[in-house]
Amino acid sequence: MTFKERLVVVRGAKWFSNLTTAIIIFYASVLGFKTIGEVENNYTTLLTILDYMVTVYFLVEILIKLYAEERTLDFFKSGWNVFDFIIVVITVVPMENTAIAPVARILRIFRVLRLLTSRPELKKIIDMLIKAIPSIVDIVILMFIVFYVYAIIGNFLFEDAASGLWSDFLISMLTLFRILTFEDWTDVMYEGMEIYPWSWIYFVSFVIIAAFVFFNLFVAVIIGEMEKINNKDMVDEMHEDHDKIDLILAELKAVRQELDEIKNTKQ
Amino acid sequence: MTFKERLVVVRGAKWFSNLTTAIIIFYASVLGFKTIGEVENNYTTLLTILDYMVTVYFLVEILIKLYAEERTLDFFKSGWNVFDFIIVVITVVPMENTAIAPVARILRIFRVLRLLTSRPELKKIIDMLIKAIPSIVDIVILMFIVFYVYAIIGNFLFEDAASGLWSDFLISMLTLFRILTFEDWTDVMYEGMEIYPWSWIYFVSFVIIAAFVFFNLFVAVIIGEMEKINNKDMVDEMHEDHDKIDLILAELKAVRQELDEIKNTKQ
Amino acid sequence: MTFKERLVVVRGAKWFSNLTTAIIIFYASVLGFKTIGEVENNYTTLLTILDYMVTVYFLVEILIKLYAEERTLDFFKSGWNVFDFIIVVITVVPMENTAIAPVARILRIFRVLRLLTSRPELKKIIDMLIKAIPSIVDIVILMFIVFYVYAIIGNFLFEDAASGLWSDFLISMLTLFRILTFEDWTDVMYEGMEIYPWSWIYFVSFVIIAAFVFFNLFVAVIIGEMEKINNKDMVDEMHEDHDKIDLILAELKAVRQELDEIKNTKQ
Amino acid sequence: MTFKERLVVVRGAKWFSNLTTAIIIFYASVLGFKTIGEVENNYTTLLTILDYMVTVYFLVEILIKLYAEERTLDFFKSGWNVFDFIIVVITVVPMENTAIAPVARILRIFRVLRLLTSRPELKKIIDMLIKAIPSIVDIVILMFIVFYVYAIIGNFLFEDAASGLWSDFLISMLTLFRILTFEDWTDVMYEGMEIYPWSWIYFVSFVIIAAFVFFNLFVAVIIGEMEKINNKDMVDEMHEDHDKIDLILAELKAVRQELDEIKNTKQ
Repeated sequence: MTFKERLVVVRGAKWFSNLTTAIIIFYASVLGFKTIGEVENNYTTLLTILDYMVTVYFLVEILIKLYAEERTLDFFKSGWNVFDFIIVVITVVPMENTAIAPVARILRIFRVLRLLTSRPELKKIIDMLIKAIPSIVDIVILMFIVFYVYAIIGNFLFEDAASGLWSDFLISMLTLFRILTFEDWTDVMYEGMEIYPWSWIYFVSFVIIAAFVFFNLFVAVIIGEMEKINNKDMVDEMHEDHDKIDLILAELKAVRQELDEIKNTKQ
Repeated sequence: MTFKERLVVVRGAKWFSNLTTAIIIFYASVLGFKTIGEVENNYTTLLTILDYMVTVYFLVEILIKLYAEERTLDFFKSGWNVFDFIIVVITVVPMENTAIAPVARILRIFRVLRLLTSRPELKKIIDMLIKAIPSIVDIVILMFIVFYVYAIIGNFLFEDAASGLWSDFLISMLTLFRILTFEDWTDVMYEGMEIYPWSWIYFVSFVIIAAFVFFNLFVAVIIGEMEKINNKDMVDEMHEDHDKIDLILAELKAVRQELDEIKNTKQ
Repeated sequence: MTFKERLVVVRGAKWFSNLTTAIIIFYASVLGFKTIGEVENNYTTLLTILDYMVTVYFLVEILIKLYAEERTLDFFKSGWNVFDFIIVVITVVPMENTAIAPVARILRIFRVLRLLTSRPELKKIIDMLIKAIPSIVDIVILMFIVFYVYAIIGNFLFEDAASGLWSDFLISMLTLFRILTFEDWTDVMYEGMEIYPWSWIYFVSFVIIAAFVFFNLFVAVIIGEMEKINNKDMVDEMHEDHDKIDLILAELKAVRQELDEIKNTKQ
Repeated sequence: MTFKERLVVVRGAKWFSNLTTAIIIFYASVLGFKTIGEVENNYTTLLTILDYMVTVYFLVEILIKLYAEERTLDFFKSGWNVFDFIIVVITVVPMENTAIAPVARILRIFRVLRLLTSRPELKKIIDMLIKAIPSIVDIVILMFIVFYVYAIIGNFLFEDAASGLWSDFLISMLTLFRILTFEDWTDVMYEGMEIYPWSWIYFVSFVIIAAFVFFNLFVAVIIGEMEKINNKDMVDEMHEDHDKIDLILAELKAVRQELDEIKNTKQ
């Protein structure tokens, strides 16, 4: 058994992926604890060492996986592998003592995202979500048009409102997003009604169009996609049955033809 | 190739609709930038020229489409064409230096709605929504009755509330709409309970009836409509199968009859 | 044609039910206008006369319907007729100058509910909702148990909170209902966390159990009921097909038996 | 009829479970009334006696059920029996005059949970919910990863915010949970935007990812599970039909073979 063969065995072993999962969870907890003030001060050295060890483990793990491939570059054919690789590379570059050290620290959090690749069920849900995007994209565009039109009108009507919620186009978009979540939207409306008393029409119509109609459409599409996946087996069976019923009809026609032949030969 | 034939080719060309889409998006961005104070002051002339050019393009585009029709009036047979035409006409009328210049400016935003006609998928969703209206209309009427009854009662009970949220019928309707979105509804309730301590019954019952029952009914209808469209193929197949199974039974009866005949001739 | 026969014709006539609908809508608008201060003062006499006329119309209408029945009491066999009758009776009793005049005025609003009986589609939705009750009742009981347990615990923990939101059992229930709608629930939580720092567990668990799990279950049941009604035809067809497939199998068995007989007689 | 046989009859009797239900409801109301100040003071003795009697009844009831089993330990084979037993034991231990008396008082509320075991429909819903857990667990893990990453980033960005909403990891998690329910989330965002003006990206992306996408996925899964249970009969029928159609095809093939044989023997 060559060294490479051993690596292939290691790469596919259950204990190896479990170890990775355990280390990520352990590392995630450490990152969580680090945020509590006193802990950070007392255990700085320990935390740094831990951080260093996880970095090394991740590096070793990805090197094993890279080397275990028959041709190293095959590793990058899977989107999930590329995802793992980017996360490891980003967090391994030594930036501790440079000007962007805080950015480095925050980037390290994304290591926790590697949990996604260590549990196949999670990969499946993410893949499903990605597949559902095309069916959502048109509703998102429609929603954007609604937002756009309302943002321009809102900015035009309430530009001088004291709250500054409509002072330019982008801020108006943010304010509309807030109204979409119903968050204190009446405060925004009552302020608007002081400028134009009839402007409740603007707000109520936006709530009905954006929050009631389009948002529910969006929910309906997600539920529809989930159902499509859940009922796939049943639908496949139904399509199969549909084809088989045609087969039965053809078969029956053949039977009648044979019967006719038998009748004719006899007479 | 006559001039008219060339126009027909242009009208149907992919690059023509793409150009229109690109110009609308470009124009939408310009409108968005215009809202940022400093931009508006420094680039006024540029923006005016851009605005003018888009107006001309839209005019030329609709004239091409109008002239490319065999009989000009056929153009107005499609609802979406009428929609385009109205938008172009409204925004082309020169109102810059009249008293209603601000209205003209706001009306020009509706040009962005022409994005709807330039992407067939969006047309489809809008058509679907329009088709779903009949199945929603009764729930909307029911909701309106609930709102009406509660608005009259609310106005009767809390007319003198300091907040003025119930001062007349229309304002009461608006207040109820706000309660429907759960927006600070408890503030309204606590104010009401100071007038009549038992009036929580009024608010809680409204929340349960309007927000829980009827609103969910409304969501259920939208989801149902989406599903009907998604499952159309499957349902069609099932209806087909249903008919074919009857055919199979008839066919089988014919087979047995032939068999009986064969048996009888033999004996 | 006797007088009674004429009444039966009137009762079934389209114009009669349309007239009733029109009068209710007209009356509803009048009631709405009455709430606007100045209107009430200037047109009091007119409004009183209108009110009087509607009362008379409703009385005549119900008398026609009562008398048009073959046996007067048959009228009360339909739940919707009883509903109409109660509304008319309640609002016809002269209470204008008694101590409960304001109650009488508010009761008159329920006349608008007669719109429900004048549009069959609305009756259908209401009937559907009533049919869905048995499938909702158990979830409502479960929800009530959750509310009950949390209300007692909440009252026990936060009884002395300054806001008085937990001062007794009923008020705790109301506070929990408010949390269910997410209305300023964090204010309640932050107050609780000042008494017991770990009490976020109480609030977060309630939100997850009551608002996320049970409320969505409630929505799921309503959507399920709607679907059952929408898909009834399809499901019926499927049950029919299911039975017919058994028939086909039996028929085929018979065919084979006959074939065997033919074979045997021949040999 | 031995004493044990009589107990078995009692245990299975409708009146026995109804009596238990009635006593629980009565007891629940008493617990509710106890929270109203004046009642507690005036009727302390009465309430204590009532409490005592319920304790005795529950003890007798569980002893009957225990003794009625053929082998006493079989009682604990049903999860629901264990549930009943734990509740009775916990609330029967005399802790009135010990240091943990208040805990004892609060524990007694859980007796109301015995309503769950006295109504089979409720048991069914709970069982259904427990069955749905595996299909929810992965979405919950995904949600947790999203929460985790955002909590660390939020804590990193806004640690020094005056509101203290991001002061450590756990508090950040709670703040994100609050944003998930849309509860005054814009206040949190506007505070964050004062520190980093572009931090609306953080909040808006969290709302879209956590509240719009994952939460709706969660709802979709619950609705899917409910449907699976509702449509179980129909799906079973369809699988049956699927198998029978194969049978029909096989049968038809056999028919043709026999026909061929007949034809051949004749020629």
